[in-house]
Amino acid sequence: MAKKEIPYKIYLEESEMPKEWYNVRADMKEKPAPLLNPGTLAPMKREELMGVFCEELVDQELDNDTRFIPIPDEIRNFYKMYRPSPLVRAYCLEERLDTPAKIYYKFEGNNTSGSHKLNSAIAQAYYAKKQGLKGVTTETGAGQWGTALSMACAYFQLDCKVYMVKVSYEQKPFRREVMRTYGASVTPSPSMETEVGRRILAEFPGTTGSLGCAISEAVEKAVSSEGYRYVLGSVLNQVLLHQSVIGLETKAALDKYGVKADMIIGCAGGGSNLGGLIGPFMGEKLRGEADYRIIAVEPASCPSFTRGRYAYDFCDTGMVCPLSKMYTLGSGFIPAPNHAGGLRYHGMSPVLSKLYDDGLMEARAVEQTKVFEAAEQFARVEGILPAPESAHAIKVAIDEAMKCKETGEEKTIVFGLTGTGYFDLVAYERFHDGKMDDYIPTDEELEKSLSKLPKVNG
Amino acid sequence: MAKKEIPYKIYLEESEMPKEWYNVRADMKEKPAPLLNPGTLAPMKREELMGVFCEELVDQELDNDTRFIPIPDEIRNFYKMYRPSPLVRAYCLEERLDTPAKIYYKFEGNNTSGSHKLNSAIAQAYYAKKQGLKGVTTETGAGQWGTALSMACAYFQLDCKVYMVKVSYEQKPFRREVMRTYGASVTPSPSMETEVGRRILAEFPGTTGSLGCAISEAVEKAVSSEGYRYVLGSVLNQVLLHQSVIGLETKAALDKYGVKADMIIGCAGGGSNLGGLIGPFMGEKLRGEADYRIIAVEPASCPSFTRGRYAYDFCDTGMVCPLSKMYTLGSGFIPAPNHAGGLRYHGMSPVLSKLYDDGLMEARAVEQTKVFEAAEQFARVEGILPAPESAHAIKVAIDEAMKCKETGEEKTIVFGLTGTGYFDLVAYERFHDGKMDDYIPTDEELEKSLSKLPKVNG
Repeated sequence: MAKKEIPYKIYLEESEMPKEWYNVRADMKEKPAPLLNPGTLAPMKREELMGVFCEELVDQELDNDTRFIPIPDEIRNFYKMYRPSPLVRAYCLEERLDTPAKIYYKFEGNNTSGSHKLNSAIAQAYYAKKQGLKGVTTETGAGQWGTALSMACAYFQLDCKVYMVKVSYEQKPFRREVMRTYGASVTPSPSMETEVGRRILAEFPGTTGSLGCAISEAVEKAVSSEGYRYVLGSVLNQVLLHQSVIGLETKAALDKYGVKADMIIGCAGGGSNLGGLIGPFMGEKLRGEADYRIIAVEPASCPSFTRGRYAYDFCDTGMVCPLSKMYTLGSGFIPAPNHAGGLRYHGMSPVLSKLYDDGLMEARAVEQTKVFEAAEQFARVEGILPAPESAHAIKVAIDEAMKCKETGEEKTIVFGLTGTGYFDLVAYERFHDGKMDDYIPTDEELEKSLSKLPKVNG
Repeated sequence: MAKKEIPYKIYLEESEMPKEWYNVRADMKEKPAPLLNPGTLAPMKREELMGVFCEELVDQELDNDTRFIPIPDEIRNFYKMYRPSPLVRAYCLEERLDTPAKIYYKFEGNNTSGSHKLNSAIAQAYYAKKQGLKGVTTETGAGQWGTALSMACAYFQLDCKVYMVKVSYEQKPFRREVMRTYGASVTPSPSMETEVGRRILAEFPGTTGSLGCAISEAVEKAVSSEGYRYVLGSVLNQVLLHQSVIGLETKAALDKYGVKADMIIGCAGGGSNLGGLIGPFMGEKLRGEADYRIIAVEPASCPSFTRGRYAYDFCDTGMVCPLSKMYTLGSGFIPAPNHAGGLRYHGMSPVLSKLYDDGLMEARAVEQTKVFEAAEQFARVEGILPAPESAHAIKVAIDEAMKCKETGEEKTIVFGLTGTGYFDLVAYERFHDGKMDDYIPTDEELEKSLSKLPKVNG
C-alpha cells in the first residue's frame, strides 16, 4: 500500500477543538417556522417554554440570529474526555471498492453512549445544573439517548429519570443496565407513576408502550416535580446547535489537510446528527462561499423527507407538546415492527425541514436489508461495527463511490458514522439468518396518517 | 477547572507509532524456561511447533535474543485504523478522589473487538496469510479473542474457525453474532466435528464445555486440515511480543510530555495485556536505566501469581499441548461459576512468571465485588464503561491513589484499561441487584488441583 499523505485518522489537537457552537439559523434568510401553542396556535413564548425546558436552553431554542454561541468551559472539559472524534480516511474501503473516490467518515462512536447523542446530553445537563435544578426527565426508546443523558447527569451529579418504552425495557436489558451503572432511574413506560401513564394503562392494559407515551410521561413528571425539567435528544433547534461540534470538527480537520468535500452524507431520524454534521458546510452554502451536495438518508420504512408532508404537526403522540412545522408522516405514524434501530421518528427537525424545502439538500430513502449489507461490508474492511442508523449513511456513501468508479470522478465523500452497533446484535442476527425483510408503507397508510394533521394547516 | 498542560488524551501522530515490537526476553539475563514436549520432556523443537503454529510465529516464539522485531507494513496499516490508542489523563477521577496522584490510563477499547486482543490477532492473521494458508482455528470463551481474530481474518480474507465454549455460545449470542458479521464460523464446543469433541460428548453427554476442551478441538482441527494452523490469544511469548505495541506507545506518549511513571498497573489473566503494557518499562528496569513498581492484578477467584506454584504444567485441560513452566493453579483448576469476565486461565505467561519469580514485579489479588465498585466509580467520572477484566487494574490504581492522598505523595500512576464492558452487562446487572458475591478458593481446593502437576517437576 502506497504511502498516505493524509493519516488514516485525523485527530485535532485539544487546542483546535471548537470553542463555540455554530447556529445555522443565523445564516438562513428565511427562518424555520416558530413552535405554536397547540391551544392558541400563537407562537410559543419564552415564558411558556420555561416551565418545561431549562432557561438557557429555551434561549438557544429561540435564538435565530446569533451565529456563534460560546461552549462553556465545563462542557468543553467533558468533550475532551471523548472528543475530538476522529475523521477517518476510509482507505481500506476505497481499496476494496476499487473506487477513485476519496471517502472520509466522522466517527462519533468512541464513547460509552455509543453515539453522538452525548454531545447534546452534556450540554443540557450542564445548563440544568447551572440553573440549580435537582434533575431532569426524558424518554428513551432503544436507549441510546437515555444512556448519553445518564452519563452526563452522573458527571454533574444530577438526578436522571428515564422513561423507557416498555418493550425496549424488557427486550433490551443491557442498555438499561448501562443507565443504572450511571445512576439513572429507569422506569418502563407506560407506568403508574404519572397520570397519563395510569390513563393509558387503564385504557390499554396490555400495551408495551411507545415513544410518544414515554415523552408524555417524562414531560408530566418534569412539570409536576419541584426542581426538574424535561430534556430531548433530537429534533429541537438547541440540539442541532450542540451537535454542530461534529461539523465544526469535521470542517477543521478537512481544512487542516486542504481537503474540499464534494458531498456530505448523513442519516436522518429526528435530524440531530445530520444537522450537526452539515451545519458549517450548509453555512458556507447559505453565504454563497462554497457549494456542497448534502444528502439526508432515511429508512424507507419511515420516510419523512421523501414521502412526508411539510406541515405543522404534533411532536408527540400524546399531543401535549407544541406544534412544529416540519416534514412529517403524521404524529400517529409508527414504523413497521420489523424496523431495526432508531430513525423511527414521525417528524424531522424544523431547521432541516426548512432547508430541504428550500432545495438546499437532497434526501434518499433506503431499505434495511441493503443497509445491513453495507454495514457488514464496511465492518469487514474498516473494522468498526456500525449502528444500523449509521449504516444508512454508509449505504449511500458506497453507492456514490461506485458511481465515481463508473465515471472515473475523484470525488471527496464525507459521511457521518454516528455510532456503534454493540446493542443492535439481535438485528444483525436476523440479518445473518435471512429473517430480515423490508417494509415500505403504502400510499394509503401514509395518507391515512397524514389525514390527521392538525387543522392549523388549513 | 484549571488549565491543563497535559491534554486529557494524548494521541501520538501516525509517524510516532512504533515501527518495531519490543521483545523483553532479549533483556532478561535468565530466559524463561523452554516449552517441553509432553511425551519426551525435551524442549520443543522448531519443527515440532511448525505443524501447529505458523512458521514466523514459531520463530518469534523461540527468539529470546532479538530485542526489536520490525512490524510489517501490512500490520502497521491495520494498526492505523484503531491505533495509536489514547493515553488518557484521568483528570476527573483525580478530582473526584481528591488525590495528589497523577493518574493515566492506556485505553485499548476503541475498536470493535473491544479490547487489546486485536493487536496480536492481526499479527497472527498476517503471518498465516503470508504463509499462504487458507485459514486458522482457535478457541474462545466469552468471545473477546474470537471477535478480534474474526476481524483480523476478514481483513486478510482468511477463513476463521472458532470453537466457542458451549455455555458461552448459548448465553452470549451477541459476541457470536459479531464474529458472524466478520464471516467467522463459530461452533459450540464440544462438538461432533472433532475426535476429541465426540469423545468428550460420549463421556459427558450434558457438558456445557470448557476452554480446555475448546483448545483441544481447535488444535485437532488445525493439524488435521490442509492449509490451517492454530492461533492463541494470550500466554505465548509471541503474543506478548505483539502486545508490546501497548507499552511502546504508552512510553512514547509519556516521554513526549516529559512524564516519568512511578508505577505501572495491569490486570493479568494469561498475561497478554500486562506483558505488552509493561514490556518497555521492564526493559529499562532490566537494563538498570530506570526503576518502576510494576503491579499485576488478578482475581481472588483465580489467583495464579499470588497462590499458584511456579512449575511445569499443561497449557490445556486436554493435555495435548506442550508443557510450560509458569505460575499455575493446575491445569484442572476452574474458577467458581460466579466469576465474571475473563482472567480465568489456570496459568500465566512464562515470561511474566519468570519476571515475577525473579522479584521484578508484584502481584495483588482482588475480589470481584470490589472490582465492580471501582468499575462503576470510574465509569461515572471518566465516562468509559470498563470491562470487568480492566476494572481489576482500576481497583488497584484507585487504592494506590488513595494511599497518595494519605501520604501527600504526587506519584504518577499508569494503568492499562484493556477494554469495554458492553458485553458484560449481565455481570453488571448482578452487581446492581446485589446478587454478586465473591468466592475465594480454599487452600484444600488449590492443593488438590496442584497435586496433579506433571511428574517432570519431581
